[in-house]
Amino acid sequence: MSGAPIISLTTDFGTRDWFVGTVKGVIATINPQARVVDVSHEIPPGDIRAGAFALASSYAFFPKGTIHLAVVDPGVGSSRRAVAVRTENFWFVGPDNGVLSWATAREKIKSVHFLENPRFFLHPMSHTFHGRDLFSPVVAHLSKGVSVQTFGPRAANLVTIPWPTARRTRGGFTGEIVYVDRFGNCITNLRAQDFADTHAKAVVVRAGRKCRCCLQPYYQAIPKGRPAAVIGSSGFIEIAVNGGNAAQQFRLRSGHSVNATFVTRSRSS
Amino acid sequence: MSGAPIISLTTDFGTRDWFVGTVKGVIATINPQARVVDVSHEIPPGDIRAGAFALASSYAFFPKGTIHLAVVDPGVGSSRRAVAVRTENFWFVGPDNGVLSWATAREKIKSVHFLENPRFFLHPMSHTFHGRDLFSPVVAHLSKGVSVQTFGPRAANLVTIPWPTARRTRGGFTGEIVYVDRFGNCITNLRAQDFADTHAKAVVVRAGRKCRCCLQPYYQAIPKGRPAAVIGSSGFIEIAVNGGNAAQQFRLRSGHSVNATFVTRSRSS
Amino acid sequence: MSGAPIISLTTDFGTRDWFVGTVKGVIATINPQARVVDVSHEIPPGDIRAGAFALASSYAFFPKGTIHLAVVDPGVGSSRRAVAVRTENFWFVGPDNGVLSWATAREKIKSVHFLENPRFFLHPMSHTFHGRDLFSPVVAHLSKGVSVQTFGPRAANLVTIPWPTARRTRGGFTGEIVYVDRFGNCITNLRAQDFADTHAKAVVVRAGRKCRCCLQPYYQAIPKGRPAAVIGSSGFIEIAVNGGNAAQQFRLRSGHSVNATFVTRSRSS
Repeated sequence: MSGAPIISLTTDFGTRDWFVGTVKGVIATINPQARVVDVSHEIPPGDIRAGAFALASSYAFFPKGTIHLAVVDPGVGSSRRAVAVRTENFWFVGPDNGVLSWATAREKIKSVHFLENPRFFLHPMSHTFHGRDLFSPVVAHLSKGVSVQTFGPRAANLVTIPWPTARRTRGGFTGEIVYVDRFGNCITNLRAQDFADTHAKAVVVRAGRKCRCCLQPYYQAIPKGRPAAVIGSSGFIEIAVNGGNAAQQFRLRSGHSVNATFVTRSRSS
Repeated sequence: MSGAPIISLTTDFGTRDWFVGTVKGVIATINPQARVVDVSHEIPPGDIRAGAFALASSYAFFPKGTIHLAVVDPGVGSSRRAVAVRTENFWFVGPDNGVLSWATAREKIKSVHFLENPRFFLHPMSHTFHGRDLFSPVVAHLSKGVSVQTFGPRAANLVTIPWPTARRTRGGFTGEIVYVDRFGNCITNLRAQDFADTHAKAVVVRAGRKCRCCLQPYYQAIPKGRPAAVIGSSGFIEIAVNGGNAAQQFRLRSGHSVNATFVTRSRSS
Repeated sequence: MSGAPIISLTTDFGTRDWFVGTVKGVIATINPQARVVDVSHEIPPGDIRAGAFALASSYAFFPKGTIHLAVVDPGVGSSRRAVAVRTENFWFVGPDNGVLSWATAREKIKSVHFLENPRFFLHPMSHTFHGRDLFSPVVAHLSKGVSVQTFGPRAANLVTIPWPTARRTRGGFTGEIVYVDRFGNCITNLRAQDFADTHAKAVVVRAGRKCRCCLQPYYQAIPKGRPAAVIGSSGFIEIAVNGGNAAQQFRLRSGHSVNATFVTRSRSS
């Protein structure tokens, strides 16, 4: 690892307290050359799925060699293990609870190691803040070139959380909302590419009791305050309201089911 | 551009999701030397006026040569154009919707260019996240010294949003609230300097139905919980409540009108 | 000070407006080498005690030589003074209102200087934003090696806010909540070490009318939704709800009293 390695942070620590600053202080103490970039610290507390989605949506836009640290860790202090995953292009470090698994599923994994060597931890080590006492020093040392074997034994595999794959139906696809962003846009697990090959004249998307909209090329293609399905920046179809908040307007949440139907005949939709 | 160029970011992306981190990842991939400084990512979604005011209030405090990227972009994906403005001291980059215009109005503009060369964009390019796919790579390349002509043709002018100039009245000035900050302080368009030359014994400021206060040298010059007009850090008069939130207490919002009256006689105010 | 000095920021400026970005712009203009690390900008407006606790909980995790700037400054523009404190390991800079005092109380103070030399301030200097106009340029110059005597005369002492020491009772300790974090965990002033030496079989912690819980090794040692007292990462006992928000669930706030009782007999708790 040459030059100034990048460590990205995805956590549920929030920015209100001193937690993130402390993590950065620990990293700077061990490796003054490391550059830390925040992905998000506002993952809802303990929401492993939201953390996994945020990481999977962002990691690939960083330089090769970036160390991605994701700490959404409701089991901190319990027996859950800590891991470092090496893939062809990146490092992923975090609790072994699935938070890394949606990102690593898209990468070619080269090794997984447990992080168990107390030589690299801060002491006294707290039971509640492994982000500071375990993960920060480990990624800082990793960014300095410490060999991953030094941190602990090789792990056979990684805890994963299942990705909710959308299913083909007779007239289209059925899936679910996997993430609601700050604009209230509801990101689904319906992949844009599944709709690209179709000869459908239109795609109608339904979610909740009242949301029914068509796939549109961009937000402003529809009148203000009306819903549309658009191909979002993560490659999934998302439900948005032009100038509004789709999640609030239609009471949609992560986990709610979504249906997309191909309209093959010409008729008003 | 020498050393480590600075790219400032003013957006409505929020910090809850992975959007800002992704922007920084893209920039770091293209120019590892660039230093990114956040101005704000909490501009209210789509509020071009608030973004314009935040940029205009902050840009001049950065080093010469700073590239100011401002993305408040409700028209993303539509036909609105993207621009890079070169002024005597800075670069301003963003959608051509007025968000740059309150800052550039204070600077000597040297050139305006459209950003149209797809060679510098990320592909596949999303319809919803030009912050990541268009603006980030452009500012990163600009920070590396790529000539602005390479990005697109020269533009004749810039879309501007009108600055609401305060008007002189018989007894003072009438204007409006242009920004409400996180403390609830209501920043007006009444310029401090217009009150400096007057021989008035006092200045009485009125806003909304119930807010009536005098111009004071600083917040704590008045009792706790009472309103005061103070000369704010942007050079405008702002309405504040000592230890409180003026916007909430008096139900004031951006766009509400404000009157300032000179008191020339000695009397209680 | 060698290499890239670190300046940490603990403020109540919020991240919604342009205040923090402006501070960073000023620092970068004066010392392009300085690296700024955010501790928090979401200290509740004017809450000196919360700022003091955040600083005291984080400062020691930064590299030696770090300049810690803390600006929670309800008296900005009044006669309160600005200070720079040199300790054996760090610099602490901020308004002289007690915000630095919980951190400096743990350090060996070597000198305290007032910050009065207008040569180092921005002009025109606002009455409302000394974070930008006074503190930022001072810490930037300090990080460049400007001698602290140049900023102003030596101060005899520092304004302090009293730390609410927990008191020994017959059966344990009585103290109070000193900070509520974003998870709703209520951090008390009961020190973990005071409970380490005891031969108690258990420790029962009570707060508010309804919160009664036992000291546990970590959050997940108890069922979901139930309260526990845990030894937090700052070395104090904190009241938490596994998977929940203790402050909301039990209506607890900073300042509320807390009792801890040793249970020496074996009985169900």
